[in-house]
Parts: sequence; structure tokens; C-alpha cells
Amino acid sequence: MSAYHPLNEEEAIEIARSLEGFFPGSGPLNCREIGDGNLNLVFHISDPASGQSLIMKQALPYAKVVGESWPLTLDRARIESEALQLEGKLAPGLVPQVYLYNPELALTIMEDLSDHVIMRRGLIEGGRYPLFSEHISTFIAQTLFFTSDLGMNQQDKKLNVGRFINPELCKITEDLIFDDPYTDAENNSFEDAIRDEAEALWNDGQLHVEVALLREKFLTQAQALLHGDLHTGSIFITPESTKVIDPEFAYYGPMGFDIGAVIANLLLNYAAREGWDHDDDAVLDYQNYLLETVREVWTKFEAKFRALWDEHGQDRLAKTAPGYKDDYMLRLLRDTIGYAGCKMVRRIVGLAHVADIDRIEDAAVREQAQRAALAIGKSLIKLNRQASSIEQLIQTAQTASAAAKA
Amino acid sequence: MSAYHPLNEEEAIEIARSLEGFFPGSGPLNCREIGDGNLNLVFHISDPASGQSLIMKQALPYAKVVGESWPLTLDRARIESEALQLEGKLAPGLVPQVYLYNPELALTIMEDLSDHVIMRRGLIEGGRYPLFSEHISTFIAQTLFFTSDLGMNQQDKKLNVGRFINPELCKITEDLIFDDPYTDAENNSFEDAIRDEAEALWNDGQLHVEVALLREKFLTQAQALLHGDLHTGSIFITPESTKVIDPEFAYYGPMGFDIGAVIANLLLNYAAREGWDHDDDAVLDYQNYLLETVREVWTKFEAKFRALWDEHGQDRLAKTAPGYKDDYMLRLLRDTIGYAGCKMVRRIVGLAHVADIDRIEDAAVREQAQRAALAIGKSLIKLNRQASSIEQLIQTAQTASAAAKA
Repeated sequence: MSAYHPLNEEEAIEIARSLEGFFPGSGPLNCREIGDGNLNLVFHISDPASGQSLIMKQALPYAKVVGESWPLTLDRARIESEALQLEGKLAPGLVPQVYLYNPELALTIMEDLSDHVIMRRGLIEGGRYPLFSEHISTFIAQTLFFTSDLGMNQQDKKLNVGRFINPELCKITEDLIFDDPYTDAENNSFEDAIRDEAEALWNDGQLHVEVALLREKFLTQAQALLHGDLHTGSIFITPESTKVIDPEFAYYGPMGFDIGAVIANLLLNYAAREGWDHDDDAVLDYQNYLLETVREVWTKFEAKFRALWDEHGQDRLAKTAPGYKDDYMLRLLRDTIGYAGCKMVRRIVGLAHVADIDRIEDAAVREQAQRAALAIGKSLIKLNRQASSIEQLIQTAQTASAAAKA
Repeated sequence: MSAYHPLNEEEAIEIARSLEGFFPGSGPLNCREIGDGNLNLVFHISDPASGQSLIMKQALPYAKVVGESWPLTLDRARIESEALQLEGKLAPGLVPQVYLYNPELALTIMEDLSDHVIMRRGLIEGGRYPLFSEHISTFIAQTLFFTSDLGMNQQDKKLNVGRFINPELCKITEDLIFDDPYTDAENNSFEDAIRDEAEALWNDGQLHVEVALLREKFLTQAQALLHGDLHTGSIFITPESTKVIDPEFAYYGPMGFDIGAVIANLLLNYAAREGWDHDDDAVLDYQNYLLETVREVWTKFEAKFRALWDEHGQDRLAKTAPGYKDDYMLRLLRDTIGYAGCKMVRRIVGLAHVADIDRIEDAAVREQAQRAALAIGKSLIKLNRQASSIEQLIQTAQTASAAAKA
């Protein structure tokens, strides 16, 4: 890796030009660094003459989060690039196309999606995406099924597990999602107004057992290649198109972690609206849209996953043992609910928050949203092993959120 | 690996001599190849002058089982050697000492245990090993705990998972233990007298679900570094000493698979005696000795594992979440019971049998033993997810075995 150094804009342009046949003319290219500088450099390079453009993402050898900096392997660029290419094969059109991966520079050159918006921003602005549940359910069903022991050669799957061992990025998840929020950890970050809620989390033994079980599965269950960070900030969207980006947290883990991430982030936006004026029908209508999307994500995922199982199942016994598939799907639902809960809780009291809630300007409204999100998150975590349908998740979320308001 | 070739006895002696300081004089060394030639060459090399001796084990690039031959990676020699050395550190004195590992030749030079007997033979001959449960419970508690997320750095553990990915040897287990016995597979091997039992296995949906769940865990649950083949043929023993050998099946899997293997092989010997004359108190007495050993293996393992957890636990939440440890131990017990059952069934109808039963000369007595082993195995598989104590395992085994006789 001796050739590695963080690129400047001139170097980025030079590399872009060397991409054969991409930029047709020899005119000047525009280049902007648009990353947040915490983990990666991201260059947007475009040709005003042809209108062609691309994205160059280069991993930095450290992570910066709220001022702190810690070293991070550049190997995550390989993992991200390989995961993106694999996802592209399994779920065509639902991830950006990769044009080139340069391991020395930890650099991936890929499709520019500037015509899309980040879904989190889209939801904050009240956007509706009628094809989202169709697209994301295809993405998760295809990528999870065909990287699991159910859908691929089981010996090749073991080699895949080795290829996607990702200790440093997993550690971030293990600490920030499955540990810190449940103790008085230095990395926690929450507003004084909800200190009572944070302290309640630290002292809730029943919750700790459920989180410990979900943490254990995250640590040990090599079920499928996960995206690993599938929140609405990792999704580019338009009403017609959905593109999942940034799989640098990819590793072999429990499927429910990815599905739960999608659902948690829809519910965080739901909770964000809990402090709004509910005499306003538009608020309730949008919340219902979000809940309906949650329902559709699961039901469409389940239908697609079951169809793949029937048509492409690789495991003889999994195909023939009576009731095994139903049992498997039930366990997936339960994991999904548990992980969704964990992902909500950490966004309120843990290190990394979400704009859906943090950018609410009115302190009382913001507090209401935080309490609603925590109430939903805790309820889902406690529900997970008892759940038997997606309707239970939705009802639990509504009830918990309403109770937090009373 | 171009230097690789199967060694002859002269070459083996030459390599042994080069082991610094091992054979003091320059007199002639004796060499015998004592392997069964199916997977490995095993040379026993000794110096009549000094009395020193050692074992050289060289992996062959193929496996031969009942005439069939299929290619097998030499990398398993690395896995075996690394597993042996790791086990030696975690459970000192309970595995043969490794003197040298030569990767080019897929060769491990290790301690000669000729003063021990293979435990399977010892049990067949009615030997008693008063320290066995103490030793083996230490071996499994130490090796499983300290290679798991409970007992070691959780990021290093992920690297370990990668180091011990072992697709070819796992495939043997997946096929022969978790698939073939439950369908009319070509590799199955059973006597005509028990065809009714074999066919019953192929058509028992309830059993198939349980086996599918145990198979799923074997495929996905990277809980700890397993020995992977911990039957009584992989244990050298004397009344004072226990040495676990041959971890070439080592990989990260569910802990219960190793514990279950030990218990299954004690119960196979128990079943072997079911056709004997039970008016003979000695038979009953030995069967009771075996059941008592089963009980001790679990109870001592559990006590040691819990003590390690309390003293050396690495996972904050696992240590503090109330009731989590009890839940974990219960799940371990259930897995142990399920895997013990699978390991018994495969030894009666699957490809590889055990001498405890196959070498019974009287056909009726042998059939009785086979039916008893199958009855116990099936009952344990069906019990596994309902079990709550080791006493249930023992009672279920006794009841099932007695019913098979009636």
C-alpha cells in the first residue's frame, strides 16, 4: 500500500481521465470534494461538455467522529467495492455501478447519482416514494438469500465469510449500537431533557437481556452478507429509482439486522413527527404513509424471500423439512423487530444521531420526538422474541409512541 | 506447495533426525507407518537406544472412504496443526505437544502417545477412566470459552474465524451427519435387518425440522473454535491421562457440537451393551458408569464454563444482563443434546460406523444395539429444544433404549 496517499482534486481528475472511454472530449473537467471528511474523500467529477459525471470515493486511514480520530483499515475500501459489485449482480439497478476499484489507493470509481436525493432528506421534506418498498424488498431479499446457505453453494459461502471479515467496522456497531446506549458510556450523546430516559435504559435488566441476545447474534451468526448500515442515509432515491450505497460495514451477520435498519429509520421519521400538530391531517397522513411503508417492506420482502427459497433453494433439508421455512421466516421477523428497536434507541442516546430528529428546532417538539423514538425502540426490543406478525410491530410502535406523549 | 510429496519411511527418519536435540545419539531409528491410509500418513519413529519416540502425521491430498477417493486440501494440515497448538495453550497437557509443523509437506511432528489407548477401544474393552470427565470437561470448557466472543478479544476472534474456515472438512460433516441419514442417500450404509428404522428416519418430518435447525446452526453459528470431530476415536486415554488428537475438522461452529460428540460416543457404547445379558450385573454396572460419565461431563463442563465466564468474561453486557448467562447455558445444553442425537443416528445408518457396535459378532445382539442407538439418537434430537436439564437427557436415553428392546 505504499502508493497510498489521500488524493487532491488534480490527481482525482487525472485518474478520471484515464478511465477508458468515459469522458469523450479533452476539455476541462470539474471536480468537487463532497465528502464529509470523516471517513472518506468523495470527489464528484463532471464534464460540462458531454454532461458525463462520476463519483470517486477514497477511504481515509482514520475515522473522525465528533472531533475524535482513530485509525481505520483501508481494507474497508476493498470490502465496500466487492460488496457493491456483488450487490449489483444480485440486485441489478439497485446499487451504483462500479467502474473501477484501485486497491493501492483504496479508491472506488462509480456511477454518479446526483439526480437522486438521500432518502433521509427526502423523508424529512415529506417526500413519497411509491416504488421504495418494492425496490428495497427486492434488494434485501436478493442480496440476503443468494449470499446465505439457503441460496448459494455452502462451501463457497464459507469462503465469502472469510473475504468479508470486517473487524473494525463491526466493532463500531458492537460498541455504538449494542453496548454504549445501555450503560453510562463516554461516547453517549443525549440532551439533558431526556436524561431520565437515558438512565432508565442503563437500569432496565429486561432490556439488557434482549440486547445481549441480539448482540450475540450480531457477533456469531454468519447468516448472509449484510449491507451492515442500511439506514435511510445509505439510500439514494427518486420516485422512480432506489440505489443503496456505502456498504463498507458489509460482513456476514444476521439478516434481520439489515431489514431492521430500514424499518428503524422509517420509524425514526415517524417519531420525529410525534411532536407536530396532530390536528393537521397532513402529519397523520404522512405518518400513516410511513407505517404502510414499514408493512410493505416486510410483507414484500417475505413474499420474495419465500419465492426464492422455493425456486432456488440449495439446501435439501431446508426445502423438505415440514414447517422449517415458516419457522425460519418467523425468526427473521423477530430478529428484524429486535434490531429495528436497537437501531432506534442508539440514534437518540448514542454517539450518532439522525437529522430527522436532531434538526427539529423547537426544543419541546424535539424532546417529544426523542421520547417517542425511545419508547418505540424499547418496545420493539422487548417484543422481538414474542412477535408473530408485522402487524404487531406496527401496533406496538403506535401504542408506545402514543403512550410516550400522554 | 511444489515440495509436497507423500513421504516414505526413509525420508521420515531423515526429517526426524533433523529435529534439533530430540534424538540424542546417532544410532538407527525405527519407523513404522501406522495410519489407516485414508486421509493421512502416520509415522511412528523411535530410538531403541534412548527410548525417545515421536509421531509424524502427513496429510494426503485425497480422502479414501470405502473405496471412493476424492481430493482434499492439504490446508487441513495447517488447520490441524494450528488448532492443536492453540488447544495446547488453552488446555495444557490435554493434547499432544507439537514439535514442528512443516507447511510445504503438510506435516506435523508431535508427541508420541503410544502409552495411551484410543478411548473407543478402551471402552469396548470395559475400561474405566476415573479422570476422564474431569479432563475432557476442562478441555471443552477452556477451548470453547477462550475462543469465543465471551472469552477473547472480539475483533481477534473474527480473524480467528477467517483462519479456521474449513469448507471441505465441514462438507463431510454437513453431508454425512446432517443430510444423508434423513434421506435415501447413496452414501448411507446400514444392515438389512434395520431397514425399517432407516426408512422411518427418511419419513419423520418432525425429526427433519429438528435436524434442519441443528444443521443451520452448524452452517452459520461461529460461536467458538470447535475440535469438530470429538468422538472417542479422537481421544487417547489412560486412567491418569487424557489427550485429544486429530482436530483437522476444526472450525468456528456451535459449541454444543463438540460436547454432544463426547456424549454421543459414550451413549453409543451404552447402546452397544443393550443386547447383552442384563442379568449380568457387570453389564448394568458398566452402563451406569457410562451414564454417570455423561452426567459428569456436562455438569463439570457447565461449572467450569460458568466460572470462566465470571472470572474472564470479555463481554460487558453478557456479564451484566440479568439471567443472560443462564439462558446461554440452557441453549448450550439443548444444542448438546440435539447434536449428540445426530451423532448417534449417523453412526448406525450413515457412511461411517463405530466399532463399539459394528464389531459385535452376534447379529441379533448387534441389531439390538443398533436399534437402541437409533432410539436414543432420535429421542435426543426430538428432546433438544424442550430440554432443561442433563437428567432429562439421561432419562430419555434410558427410556428410549428400553423401549427399543420391548
